[in-house]
Amino acid sequence: MDTKTKKDLKDNFMTTSRIETLVDGIFAISMTLLVLNLDVPQLVSPTTNLIIIDYLISLIPKFYVYALSFILLAVFWRINHQAFHRIKRSNSIFTWINVMWLMFVALVPFSTSLMGEYGEFQAATLFFHFNMLCIGILSLISWRYAFKNDLTTVKLTEKSYRNSIKVYMLFPIVCLVAIALTFISPSWSSLAYMGMFLFKKIKD
Amino acid sequence: MDTKTKKDLKDNFMTTSRIETLVDGIFAISMTLLVLNLDVPQLVSPTTNLIIIDYLISLIPKFYVYALSFILLAVFWRINHQAFHRIKRSNSIFTWINVMWLMFVALVPFSTSLMGEYGEFQAATLFFHFNMLCIGILSLISWRYAFKNDLTTVKLTEKSYRNSIKVYMLFPIVCLVAIALTFISPSWSSLAYMGMFLFKKIKD
Amino acid sequence: MDTKTKKDLKDNFMTTSRIETLVDGIFAISMTLLVLNLDVPQLVSPTTNLIIIDYLISLIPKFYVYALSFILLAVFWRINHQAFHRIKRSNSIFTWINVMWLMFVALVPFSTSLMGEYGEFQAATLFFHFNMLCIGILSLISWRYAFKNDLTTVKLTEKSYRNSIKVYMLFPIVCLVAIALTFISPSWSSLAYMGMFLFKKIKD
Amino acid sequence: MDTKTKKDLKDNFMTTSRIETLVDGIFAISMTLLVLNLDVPQLVSPTTNLIIIDYLISLIPKFYVYALSFILLAVFWRINHQAFHRIKRSNSIFTWINVMWLMFVALVPFSTSLMGEYGEFQAATLFFHFNMLCIGILSLISWRYAFKNDLTTVKLTEKSYRNSIKVYMLFPIVCLVAIALTFISPSWSSLAYMGMFLFKKIKD
Repeated sequence: MDTKTKKDLKDNFMTTSRIETLVDGIFAISMTLLVLNLDVPQLVSPTTNLIIIDYLISLIPKFYVYALSFILLAVFWRINHQAFHRIKRSNSIFTWINVMWLMFVALVPFSTSLMGEYGEFQAATLFFHFNMLCIGILSLISWRYAFKNDLTTVKLTEKSYRNSIKVYMLFPIVCLVAIALTFISPSWSSLAYMGMFLFKKIKD
Repeated sequence: MDTKTKKDLKDNFMTTSRIETLVDGIFAISMTLLVLNLDVPQLVSPTTNLIIIDYLISLIPKFYVYALSFILLAVFWRINHQAFHRIKRSNSIFTWINVMWLMFVALVPFSTSLMGEYGEFQAATLFFHFNMLCIGILSLISWRYAFKNDLTTVKLTEKSYRNSIKVYMLFPIVCLVAIALTFISPSWSSLAYMGMFLFKKIKD
Repeated sequence: MDTKTKKDLKDNFMTTSRIETLVDGIFAISMTLLVLNLDVPQLVSPTTNLIIIDYLISLIPKFYVYALSFILLAVFWRINHQAFHRIKRSNSIFTWINVMWLMFVALVPFSTSLMGEYGEFQAATLFFHFNMLCIGILSLISWRYAFKNDLTTVKLTEKSYRNSIKVYMLFPIVCLVAIALTFISPSWSSLAYMGMFLFKKIKD
Repeated sequence: MDTKTKKDLKDNFMTTSRIETLVDGIFAISMTLLVLNLDVPQLVSPTTNLIIIDYLISLIPKFYVYALSFILLAVFWRINHQAFHRIKRSNSIFTWINVMWLMFVALVPFSTSLMGEYGEFQAATLFFHFNMLCIGILSLISWRYAFKNDLTTVKLTEKSYRNSIKVYMLFPIVCLVAIALTFISPSWSSLAYMGMFLFKKIKD
């Protein structure tokens, strides 16, 4: 096949706007699907106010993971938007790194349900933290790739790039801390993410 | 870390367009997920027309909360759009107020299901009204923050700001009325929202 | 309250772009949620190829209503886009007509599931056709309101308006035919919609 | 009816932007709904770490089809965006080809669940591959129609069109290979899609 034509067909449309619409859609849907983690039960008859209150209290761990995942996805979405504000070109590899990243983003409703249901077991919390770790690492790879391959609008200085990479490395490190914490207490391991917010507050 | 670079990385992309796409997505999905509150049952055999009609009649409370939640979400979405028409800058705190707000918006399908299933119990209706109250208060906080921190395009006069705040306070008050009504009759408490529409009609 | 300020706050943002994003979102989600009408069963063990084939064959009525609803929603979405191409201003009443219309659009996944499950019973098919009728009538009301209140870009002539109204009336009439047909055969009543496509073909 | 008015009403809005928003929405939702294929079970008590690990291991075939479908949908979405980058006009027939195409795209979460649950049975894998085949063929028809009816921006040369058609034919051929492979081993038949990626790598 005529390489020029093929290359032309491929590279012609190499702006990032296309991937951005998909990103926004998948984030909005994933964040909203988190609510399916909370379900309304067929309570045993005769239902009373007390039974409903008891049920809602038993849902507290699920409300907690709902809020946690919602906020973490919002963090990622925000980081991505900040990155894409600076990235103006794209290519096949960059697109596919982002598709892989979205695959783990779309998996979050499942990990959230799993941790909501079995948050006291290490296997469930490990799955959640690994999911978050994959998202964080793919974010880092995506940003690194964009910088190394000149996809950014204004050429960043080496120094400001190195600084930004530190920001991108914070999240994977937090995930690793959370993973380590599951060996002490699965139920409390997700507090590592809270640590991240405190840390950011102090540094600012 | 070099504060300037970091600040630059953060503030560079401080328009509101980014949060608007997320808002629109989450509203559209939450409004459509309300329908999952209505489910098609495996009716006992032998199924007859009468059994289906009976089932549909038994769904009336669920149709009612479906319509109620759909309309309330549309009200919030409209208020938000009117606000964002005037807000042109954003910052970290403003974004996070809005993410919190969206977290309660995305929770509405759950509260709706709960009230649809157990609308005659105070616990379920209280949960619904508290969810609405949180949305209303966060709307108010978001608008207040935008005004106080000069995020609006054209500087509003103190007077027109005070008038707009009254509009924003209407909804939380209605929620409090609804909460009070649950102590009299949970099933009828949601009529408080109807009162809001009548009130607006009379004032206009 | 100062009426001018309030009016200003309300009318300031009276373009249609805002409602269009909600329309597009709700249509895309409703059309995709139709698939939840099809579910993958826990088949009795031992599962064989034949059991799966039998199950897929038993799903044929559900595939049919999936396709029917998908196409009907696509028709409505297209009609709406053609209308909004001509409508450039909006007001409160117009917005609320459209919200009501969207409420019935978002209900379609439920009606579809109901007809998919109980398509041989009049009650289920009537519900579906009434849902479609409401969508069709609200489309007509919305377009009529836009024309009568000068919300259209270019003033249409009375004649071209009357012609366009005929197009908008076609669908409610088809729904009424479908409703009438349920008294003869619920299962075949939805063929009325096919009639509409044939009719349009012949007239063109 | 006055043909000119009707034609005018129809053709007036013949840009592709309208169908693009629907395409983006349906893809984002379908890709995210794939996650519903993975469900969190009510495990038998007493739950242990081992039981959760066993369950997660038993999910591996479902994770595999999740990733496969996510990537295949991303491929189609990308191909569509490349095509729509070149297509600037639209007409009724073109719109309807794309609606049909979207109908099969929105069906993917079902086929994915079916193959995830019964991937070792030929009936389930055949259903999945036929779904993909329909998507691939409708993509090809859509592109062919756009070229033959001058809907593209810049007139492509016959040669570059013929080259592009080869790209569009690759996917249906891969589907046919997958279909053939189900007669040997349903479980491994989906590896045909991997073959496609390898093939593209080698040719590039």
